[in-house]
Amino acid sequence: MRRKGLASMAAQAVEVTENASSVTLGPAAGLSCRECGERFPLGPIFACATCFGPLEVAYELPGGDPEALRKQIEAGPHNIWRYAPLLPVPADVAGKPNLNPGFTKLVKADNLARELGVTGGLYVKDDSGNPTHSFKDRVVAIAVEAARAFGFTTLSCSSTGNLAGAVGAAARRAGFRSCVFIPHDLEAGKVVMAAVYGGDLVGIEGNYDDVNRFCSELIGDPLGEGWGFVNVNLRPYYGEGSKTLAYEICEQLGWRLPDQIVIPVASGSQLTKIDKGLKELITLGLVEDRPYRIYGAQAEGCSPVSTAFKAGHDVVRPQKPDTIAKSLAIGNPADGPYVLDIARRTGGAVEDVNDEQVVDAIKLLARTEGIFAETAGGVTVGVTKKLIEAGLLDPTLSTVILNTGDGLKTLDAVAPTTGPTATIRPSLDAFRSAGLAG
Amino acid sequence: MRRKGLASMAAQAVEVTENASSVTLGPAAGLSCRECGERFPLGPIFACATCFGPLEVAYELPGGDPEALRKQIEAGPHNIWRYAPLLPVPADVAGKPNLNPGFTKLVKADNLARELGVTGGLYVKDDSGNPTHSFKDRVVAIAVEAARAFGFTTLSCSSTGNLAGAVGAAARRAGFRSCVFIPHDLEAGKVVMAAVYGGDLVGIEGNYDDVNRFCSELIGDPLGEGWGFVNVNLRPYYGEGSKTLAYEICEQLGWRLPDQIVIPVASGSQLTKIDKGLKELITLGLVEDRPYRIYGAQAEGCSPVSTAFKAGHDVVRPQKPDTIAKSLAIGNPADGPYVLDIARRTGGAVEDVNDEQVVDAIKLLARTEGIFAETAGGVTVGVTKKLIEAGLLDPTLSTVILNTGDGLKTLDAVAPTTGPTATIRPSLDAFRSAGLAG
Ligand SMILES: [Zn+2]
Ligand SMILES: [Zn+2]
Repeated sequence: MRRKGLASMAAQAVEVTENASSVTLGPAAGLSCRECGERFPLGPIFACATCFGPLEVAYELPGGDPEALRKQIEAGPHNIWRYAPLLPVPADVAGKPNLNPGFTKLVKADNLARELGVTGGLYVKDDSGNPTHSFKDRVVAIAVEAARAFGFTTLSCSSTGNLAGAVGAAARRAGFRSCVFIPHDLEAGKVVMAAVYGGDLVGIEGNYDDVNRFCSELIGDPLGEGWGFVNVNLRPYYGEGSKTLAYEICEQLGWRLPDQIVIPVASGSQLTKIDKGLKELITLGLVEDRPYRIYGAQAEGCSPVSTAFKAGHDVVRPQKPDTIAKSLAIGNPADGPYVLDIARRTGGAVEDVNDEQVVDAIKLLARTEGIFAETAGGVTVGVTKKLIEAGLLDPTLSTVILNTGDGLKTLDAVAPTTGPTATIRPSLDAFRSAGLAG
Repeated sequence: MRRKGLASMAAQAVEVTENASSVTLGPAAGLSCRECGERFPLGPIFACATCFGPLEVAYELPGGDPEALRKQIEAGPHNIWRYAPLLPVPADVAGKPNLNPGFTKLVKADNLARELGVTGGLYVKDDSGNPTHSFKDRVVAIAVEAARAFGFTTLSCSSTGNLAGAVGAAARRAGFRSCVFIPHDLEAGKVVMAAVYGGDLVGIEGNYDDVNRFCSELIGDPLGEGWGFVNVNLRPYYGEGSKTLAYEICEQLGWRLPDQIVIPVASGSQLTKIDKGLKELITLGLVEDRPYRIYGAQAEGCSPVSTAFKAGHDVVRPQKPDTIAKSLAIGNPADGPYVLDIARRTGGAVEDVNDEQVVDAIKLLARTEGIFAETAGGVTVGVTKKLIEAGLLDPTLSTVILNTGDGLKTLDAVAPTTGPTATIRPSLDAFRSAGLAG
């Protein structure tokens, strides 16, 4: 995003904030700049008015007895709202109309562990179990509550896939109008998934960059008044949804930190928020304070962060994406430098796999655990395998791999190499000849 | 299925049963013939050796204090195994490797209720939240446990869709070989979903009837030794999985029976088993004994049961299916007469909607509740609407609608009529002209 645009939006945002300064969102105490630390009241702003750094939610988290908090969480609903005391949402959020994502399965992946040689316990956090079958439901759910608090009436985003459906579905259930922007030449199947919820869907003549540029203009224009763009002016709230992955993993492990987590890297936001969530659990005394390692996973065709990691650089050089893992295809990842910091600080790594390895990994996960992952899940499983082979991930330690979406959404990735074992006449003789009995 | 084939299979089955008579599956006391009541020991048999009637599981259900049982269930895992004391599965089933389906969301559908004029409380039981995104995961999970108990090593089925994926996924996680049979000309997307789990997938040159005929031959042949066909020789166990829908609905309503339930009818098995589950809960004292109405929903293009219901017939005349609701396209439903019985006994009805109404209903559910249903879900929502309009379903009573699968699997149904609201150049002027602001 261009600095000039950001500056005018930041200025506009401060104005909005002053009107909205009475907003309360649970334990959220305000927004703080990730770069210079400056604080702002809660509002639909995303860039620091001083240094243009990204804003994130700052909390006054509940103090006191961790055991009481743990009990409160365990007595909560089986979705992300059990963690409402740790999220920028109203305390009564569970009673409001929303899609109630989260608390997806943490699958003990013993078959996959055998194939990969992991002996310390291997788990797949399977976010395909969310309402629209990707982790986006988590982040959108938090953005919806912020949109409610700020009095927005239209929910919006730019998207090439999962996010469009997540916003469309969440908006309708929550009673918002929605208007989602997509490149006009998106594949037919993805258009259907984005359009079926009945909100407005606008094809933009141009590529994804053009769509984003258009959305930035719209936010700064009176035409966009009352519009909450989940991943732009609601981004600080939106991003916090990913913390729930950290909370759930630890709770599902019996309130223990995993030793190692492998997380896909698109903008890098998810990985940084999972790290934030783990640190919060330690601070709150909900888990024991001990080291964990965070690994980032990219596709070779869009690997700006892993390239920087392996070169020992602090700066992430943008790339032009060319990979089947389209949900990770962000060539200029906003949180890339933070990902590098976290991987290095925790003793993890950032690695990438090529498209063929992505497809192989999707199939490996499917044939070992019966989980059909989106390409992003193929990336994390493939990277895990590669890291073990390279000696960078310790197979004797407990390891969690994220699958952030559903294979049904990226059928094209596996279709060319997935088909019947045999095709035969309907006769026992033909079946015998095929050699499949026994 | 032809009587001759059944007879030879029943005979063979009794032999098998005698070897397997030491098998125990939780509270399952044996199999009993639905027609003549004859009892058989637990085994991989499905037709009565005396009258060829269908066999079903007979139970010795836990007696004693309902409150203790309720507490036991509530302390169980968040999947169907919380009801293990009421299912034909070993008591330690939750610890075995399987996909752990169930405990899907019961969504309070207030937006849809407003559109349909339902004032008594409207709920959607959304089984798209299962591991492979259809209710088939429930039934397959029970069949897997029976297959384990009977020492089978290969899991199989004939399928044109959801079942293939459910069997493939469950088999791999549970450590079975799988071999699934499909018509050779199945759509490419469905082939991918069936093949991706890596078990054997065999295309049969012929239509679905040919596939079924072939499977029946295979069961009677030494080539099929050690093979469990989930919906044939494991069918009595498989079918019981649908009871869990009844249990979950009542538990999620706070251990209350709904007044009315709308259930899709393919073979009719699901509807009859849900009725069985509700009756068990009453018998066990887990819910208050009061009347409930069960409604069956079909697509007009495959409506043998609703046609019989409306004509006042007891006999279901087979039809040649022609509908977009392919997961319900069973022209000669085995449990059709039982469905008629139940609908009449409970004061319900069986109704059908045409393909256009199915598509409209899919969109209605999506735009009101953010739930994207498979065509079968469009059938139940559409039938609910039609029943209310006809005065056959009481909108002042609590009503549960089943959505048994995921819209991602039947994108073709809505694709022709689902697309962008507008396509514009990336400029504010173009957006203003499109009239979508505000
Ligand atoms: Zn700053
Ligand atoms: Zn009989």
